Amino acid sequence: MKLVVIGGGSSYTPELMEGLIAEIRSLPLRELYLVDIPPGQDKLEAVAGLCDRMLQKAGLAGTVKLRATLRRREALGGADFVISQFRAGGLQARVNDELLPLAYGIVGQETTGPGGFAQALRAIPEALALAREMEELCPEAWLINFTNPSGVVTEALQRYSAIKTVGLCNIPAIMRKTLAAFLEAPPHQLALHFTGLNHLSFVTRVTLAGNDIIARILPEPAAHFFAAASPALDPTEVSRLIGHLGLLPSPYLRYYYFPRQTFDEALKQARGPGTRAQQIMAFEKELLQRYRDPELNQKPPELSFRGGACYSEAAVSLMVSLCGGGPGEHVLNVRNDGAIPDLPARAVVETNCLVEKDAIRVLEAGPLPAAVRGLVQQVKAYEELTVEAAAEGDYRKAYQALLNHPLVRGADTARALLEEIINKNRPFLPQFGGYR
Amino acid sequence: MKLVVIGGGSSYTPELMEGLIAEIRSLPLRELYLVDIPPGQDKLEAVAGLCDRMLQKAGLAGTVKLRATLRRREALGGADFVISQFRAGGLQARVNDELLPLAYGIVGQETTGPGGFAQALRAIPEALALAREMEELCPEAWLINFTNPSGVVTEALQRYSAIKTVGLCNIPAIMRKTLAAFLEAPPHQLALHFTGLNHLSFVTRVTLAGNDIIARILPEPAAHFFAAASPALDPTEVSRLIGHLGLLPSPYLRYYYFPRQTFDEALKQARGPGTRAQQIMAFEKELLQRYRDPELNQKPPELSFRGGACYSEAAVSLMVSLCGGGPGEHVLNVRNDGAIPDLPARAVVETNCLVEKDAIRVLEAGPLPAAVRGLVQQVKAYEELTVEAAAEGDYRKAYQALLNHPLVRGADTARALLEEIINKNRPFLPQFGGYR
Amino acid sequence: MKLVVIGGGSSYTPELMEGLIAEIRSLPLRELYLVDIPPGQDKLEAVAGLCDRMLQKAGLAGTVKLRATLRRREALGGADFVISQFRAGGLQARVNDELLPLAYGIVGQETTGPGGFAQALRAIPEALALAREMEELCPEAWLINFTNPSGVVTEALQRYSAIKTVGLCNIPAIMRKTLAAFLEAPPHQLALHFTGLNHLSFVTRVTLAGNDIIARILPEPAAHFFAAASPALDPTEVSRLIGHLGLLPSPYLRYYYFPRQTFDEALKQARGPGTRAQQIMAFEKELLQRYRDPELNQKPPELSFRGGACYSEAAVSLMVSLCGGGPGEHVLNVRNDGAIPDLPARAVVETNCLVEKDAIRVLEAGPLPAAVRGLVQQVKAYEELTVEAAAEGDYRKAYQALLNHPLVRGADTARALLEEIINKNRPFLPQFGGYR
Amino acid sequence: MKLVVIGGGSSYTPELMEGLIAEIRSLPLRELYLVDIPPGQDKLEAVAGLCDRMLQKAGLAGTVKLRATLRRREALGGADFVISQFRAGGLQARVNDELLPLAYGIVGQETTGPGGFAQALRAIPEALALAREMEELCPEAWLINFTNPSGVVTEALQRYSAIKTVGLCNIPAIMRKTLAAFLEAPPHQLALHFTGLNHLSFVTRVTLAGNDIIARILPEPAAHFFAAASPALDPTEVSRLIGHLGLLPSPYLRYYYFPRQTFDEALKQARGPGTRAQQIMAFEKELLQRYRDPELNQKPPELSFRGGACYSEAAVSLMVSLCGGGPGEHVLNVRNDGAIPDLPARAVVETNCLVEKDAIRVLEAGPLPAAVRGLVQQVKAYEELTVEAAAEGDYRKAYQALLNHPLVRGADTARALLEEIINKNRPFLPQFGGYR
Repeated sequence: MKLVVIGGGSSYTPELMEGLIAEIRSLPLRELYLVDIPPGQDKLEAVAGLCDRMLQKAGLAGTVKLRATLRRREALGGADFVISQFRAGGLQARVNDELLPLAYGIVGQETTGPGGFAQALRAIPEALALAREMEELCPEAWLINFTNPSGVVTEALQRYSAIKTVGLCNIPAIMRKTLAAFLEAPPHQLALHFTGLNHLSFVTRVTLAGNDIIARILPEPAAHFFAAASPALDPTEVSRLIGHLGLLPSPYLRYYYFPRQTFDEALKQARGPGTRAQQIMAFEKELLQRYRDPELNQKPPELSFRGGACYSEAAVSLMVSLCGGGPGEHVLNVRNDGAIPDLPARAVVETNCLVEKDAIRVLEAGPLPAAVRGLVQQVKAYEELTVEAAAEGDYRKAYQALLNHPLVRGADTARALLEEIINKNRPFLPQFGGYR
Repeated sequence: MKLVVIGGGSSYTPELMEGLIAEIRSLPLRELYLVDIPPGQDKLEAVAGLCDRMLQKAGLAGTVKLRATLRRREALGGADFVISQFRAGGLQARVNDELLPLAYGIVGQETTGPGGFAQALRAIPEALALAREMEELCPEAWLINFTNPSGVVTEALQRYSAIKTVGLCNIPAIMRKTLAAFLEAPPHQLALHFTGLNHLSFVTRVTLAGNDIIARILPEPAAHFFAAASPALDPTEVSRLIGHLGLLPSPYLRYYYFPRQTFDEALKQARGPGTRAQQIMAFEKELLQRYRDPELNQKPPELSFRGGACYSEAAVSLMVSLCGGGPGEHVLNVRNDGAIPDLPARAVVETNCLVEKDAIRVLEAGPLPAAVRGLVQQVKAYEELTVEAAAEGDYRKAYQALLNHPLVRGADTARALLEEIINKNRPFLPQFGGYR
Repeated sequence: MKLVVIGGGSSYTPELMEGLIAEIRSLPLRELYLVDIPPGQDKLEAVAGLCDRMLQKAGLAGTVKLRATLRRREALGGADFVISQFRAGGLQARVNDELLPLAYGIVGQETTGPGGFAQALRAIPEALALAREMEELCPEAWLINFTNPSGVVTEALQRYSAIKTVGLCNIPAIMRKTLAAFLEAPPHQLALHFTGLNHLSFVTRVTLAGNDIIARILPEPAAHFFAAASPALDPTEVSRLIGHLGLLPSPYLRYYYFPRQTFDEALKQARGPGTRAQQIMAFEKELLQRYRDPELNQKPPELSFRGGACYSEAAVSLMVSLCGGGPGEHVLNVRNDGAIPDLPARAVVETNCLVEKDAIRVLEAGPLPAAVRGLVQQVKAYEELTVEAAAEGDYRKAYQALLNHPLVRGADTARALLEEIINKNRPFLPQFGGYR
Repeated sequence: MKLVVIGGGSSYTPELMEGLIAEIRSLPLRELYLVDIPPGQDKLEAVAGLCDRMLQKAGLAGTVKLRATLRRREALGGADFVISQFRAGGLQARVNDELLPLAYGIVGQETTGPGGFAQALRAIPEALALAREMEELCPEAWLINFTNPSGVVTEALQRYSAIKTVGLCNIPAIMRKTLAAFLEAPPHQLALHFTGLNHLSFVTRVTLAGNDIIARILPEPAAHFFAAASPALDPTEVSRLIGHLGLLPSPYLRYYYFPRQTFDEALKQARGPGTRAQQIMAFEKELLQRYRDPELNQKPPELSFRGGACYSEAAVSLMVSLCGGGPGEHVLNVRNDGAIPDLPARAVVETNCLVEKDAIRVLEAGPLPAAVRGLVQQVKAYEELTVEAAAEGDYRKAYQALLNHPLVRGADTARALLEEIINKNRPFLPQFGGYR
């Protein structure tokens, strides 16, 4: 098995490395290519060096061939799995995504709202270029997409390429772990059933050793977990929300259900310690310095502050199932095709799947609860328009996309945002007449 | 033919009377009952008096039997058509609907937003009580619903009663007339094709003498008409919006596309001359005084300031078609059943229908344009939850309804609004434990 | 307006000519091209000669330019309407279609069963070649398809070309006329609402001057009309069938509801006077002789024996509506798109449409009655497979098509039929490796 | 756990007993009630006696309380699972079902064709009466339905009762075992993915240890297995059929794909050794004699000749999963709800499900392959009409049901069959005016 990681120079990669090593008995991994672009060469070398030492420590240096390269075409030839985790425009572009919407009274966020929209415009042409190369060089490989906004980029890949693509996110695994810790139960005994979209998903059922226990966690501790990331939320209101919904929403839903509070927090952060990306940039420098230490041969504990918990778990366990290491239930971003009948057949949705060797079988999620149907449909319309705008370079659809976003208030705001996003991201938007 | 008007004491009724008289050759009208409730007796008498004199002037006193009554059951027996135009809670409740949301930064409006929601909670139990009586006393009669919010009330009637119900609104007819005047064309040569929901509809095609001329009116003069009701809107932004949508939206869409500007206007109006309902209340007093003048035997021109233009035209021409006076195309609120495949089969939608004797045949509208699909789906989810909350007295669904409304920002706002709405409307909300 | 008739040498054409002349005030016809292929040159000349004299008699020789030609490309340039009425393989191929199935115990028929299947295999490549030329030479023209099997060929054109195509059949008009005669009512006061597929349609509602009178015609006289074409049917069984269905089926349904009796009749006819096509061939010779008479300047009454009644009416009145001569209700073969929610969106169905200038608006037909849903769905599956088999030259889909046909009993029969059909039609089936 | 078996006196029951004993560690079985009706008392006693000795031999006499009773209400109180395996009218009625259609040239069969239809008319009122009692006495229990026709009876239960019902059939398990034996593979490593309806299902994918191996079994050995039950089928034709379908059909599909051959066989059998039911009746007498032997304390090997292989496996493993003994994939008859988008949402379909403690999660099957879509839709229409006819006692729908059955040729045949079926089954058809 040959695995290629696009954006391999990410500081997350040692976490993936650790996961691969842990599951090496279930995964016939022989070749691992870390691919990046020239501006990322330094990072790539630091990351690859550490990964190499991790392999040696695990006694796998002879088994797994590790390569770090800037030549993507060479890496892709004969690949079985390709993980896409590149970030179009790098962290600096993300800083812009986080700052720009604040001036419009809207939260600045990597995946939600105008920030996620800007990232999608940048990422989709890149992702499609990757898929074109895969169609030529490894047409049978699976493409596991982490590139954010994960659901939107996955939909673009499903719509405009023939490569077998599946989108992944670490949130479902994190929610499971958090809940397991609270219940003092082994995570593998806990199952969460998701419906909705990436970063817009809802848990409709929770089973512990097979027993439906959702009533035990609604509204508490569900509300507590939901609010954990946002100290500004009023616990009573959150508790009411969760109780009245009768569902456990992904923490990302806080941007929709508490737009004012989350905006205030984002503004405060931007004015104080810096946005999330700014903090990561500072921290990453140290982290990479740490990676370069020739004595370091394991994932340093500091990496956990970087975010991305469970990311390795989601990717590695999915590959194990796809390689035939035993069927498993995974929460994936896949083509809908009736699993959620209120959404278009071709839409990408985030829901539970049974994964077997080379096959992903979607579990019917059923109609969306009326309490959340409208929101999910509206965001899906925004996503569909974003996908088409990004893939086709269509200004009008880009305008329509923002006009449809629940966090964008008013047509004038949509228009102004769009112009500023295009201007600020011009080097990354060739489809809108930009240049590189 | 026997026609019963529920809420017959409305100051609009003389307009309906005028329309009935004008089409009396196409309508075999023999009995006309104006029904109202005791608090409206005075208004009813004034209105009925004028209507009577209008009939006499037209030489129809012998042909059409006019009755004004507070006894609804007697009126309904043997009815062929029932027009519902009552206003639950009267104009005073509407004033509250217009004022209450302003404190939350949301426009106060009769049918859109929290104001429309409050009105739906009051109107639906009343409308269903009417339908129960019709099932008993005139099960074959058509119920033509003008009671606002018209689409929502019609959906409640379709869902919870067996009476043949159709919802009407004067906006489609007004849009046609306005456009005809601009084009200097006879209105009957102009056809507008609507899709969407009541007060949330879009014109996708405009034909003049059969020629599709939508390109001639987009973005202008469409943008001009759209903005006419709201001087605060920036014409350039409106023009861009209409041009990028490629559709002509109902003017009511301004609340969604320009929420800040329309809120500012509503606030200014409330603080200045009074809300729309307050202005009407003042004006209506004079109007009714005018009606009481025994010399007056025609609709006074002042009525046109009252609003409701084309209301008579919509109702009378629909009845003419349903009575067999020749098939006609009408824009109606009807059960969807696939006409707009992106909305639930049982949803009520506003779209073009071919109406024949005792039959309404929906013209396939096709999938919603992606540019507006999400908004329409979200508002429909809000409407569905509102219908169920109102009919079942379900607090949780009422909360979910407001949570889903695009103009309500945040779960805390939804909760606070709901509590205040229920408190302020308690006498009219028996289903939520209110009393009368 | 320029009209091009493909298969213009058909002996039906004078009927079309008569219709065009009758409606000349509503149709701005300036050029009429009759196009045929070399083997039909003689017929074409005879037909064109008569048409010319008909124009002269009507005083239209100066107004309408008539051309008879074998050069299709020249004719198509700048066309506004193209009528396709060619018969791939001519009448001789139809004789084969009628005889071949008899050996398998199946009725031999022009459009239904294996005969219709063979004709579809021959006609679809020809129809698509015509559409290709139209895309190049007159991309905005309407293609009105009469080429049989009309629904299947229309679906192929909708699926595989961008030309605006609509399928027509004379059966709906005949049913209306027959019923009008029985009711002694003017045909224009009678409206029949169809649902289903071409030659597999059902009337669900009949209105006379707007009044629903279906109860007056079920089961009689409906059963009588249904059985008229087949003396072998037992009137009591037919009456029961119609009564229990609660619908008026197209007479072509007799092949499905009475397969044994209609087979027996076809066999008897083949052994006796000859199949329908054989009879027509004999008769047509005389008819064309008659056309060549330089004194004849009107449609000879004998043509009515040829069949095709109302064909001219259907085509001409459709063109009048599409040209803006006033909206009209027509029964057409159009893309489904939700009008009949039990059938695929892209399927072609036969149902009522409101036709306006350059626009066809489908009237929602609603779910198929359960009593006929299965049959219609099964035949549609057969049609879809036939369309794809014919367009793609796919043997396996051709086999699957026959396997799905309700009149073909057993996989062995399907296989044997397919082989014989391909062998017997080889010159006309280039897509299956045939030659010409 | 309390298990109640309705029709517990069936000679199959010892097989169920054996399965329950084998899995007793995974199933907390404490009470087992075998319920039957008075005419079956003798059989019930013989069967219960053997089951008792089997429990004793397994050392479970103290653990599992076994009761045989004619008092159903007493048995149902507090039940956790109810297995329905009664046969309405007993084997004698089945003999009629097998013989009656032969006179019309149609195969006589327990579940397919007019025989299955007759059985449905008898079984559905009985099944609904059982469900009514369960709603009262054990509303939370699962009803596992084996009563034939299993899919149709399950649909009736789903439509007309609130009891959690799932339909089972042994065919999927038999197909898996047969294939495993051929492949010399352990059955648990083999997975077959089914789509369609009970006795009308198709295997679209086969995995061995996770590898898709369907290409290895198409057309052979699939064709061989398909034809195994019918020596009269021509192997070449079967092989072609399977190859061209690209699917492995349930052996019951032979009645549809080879109607003449299977009819001939049924006729020959009826004239020779007797129908299947006649043979069983003879054999069952001996079998019950054997059961009465007080020395016998295990399932006698002769039972395997009785049919019903894997029946115990299907039932017991399903109960183990529903009791929380570990999730498992089962092929079940469940409400469709989008799993097969070409069939109505409320239809019962046979497809793969993931079963967990108290939960059945349907795996999305996707659109039906076009090659079989029409047949499945038509049979589903027949089934839906049968369900409604049986539950409502509606003669007209019963007629429509037979009219829609692919094996019934012609409206006259449908009518004659229906009359004879109603006459012959009068004591069992109270809903059609019969008596008991």
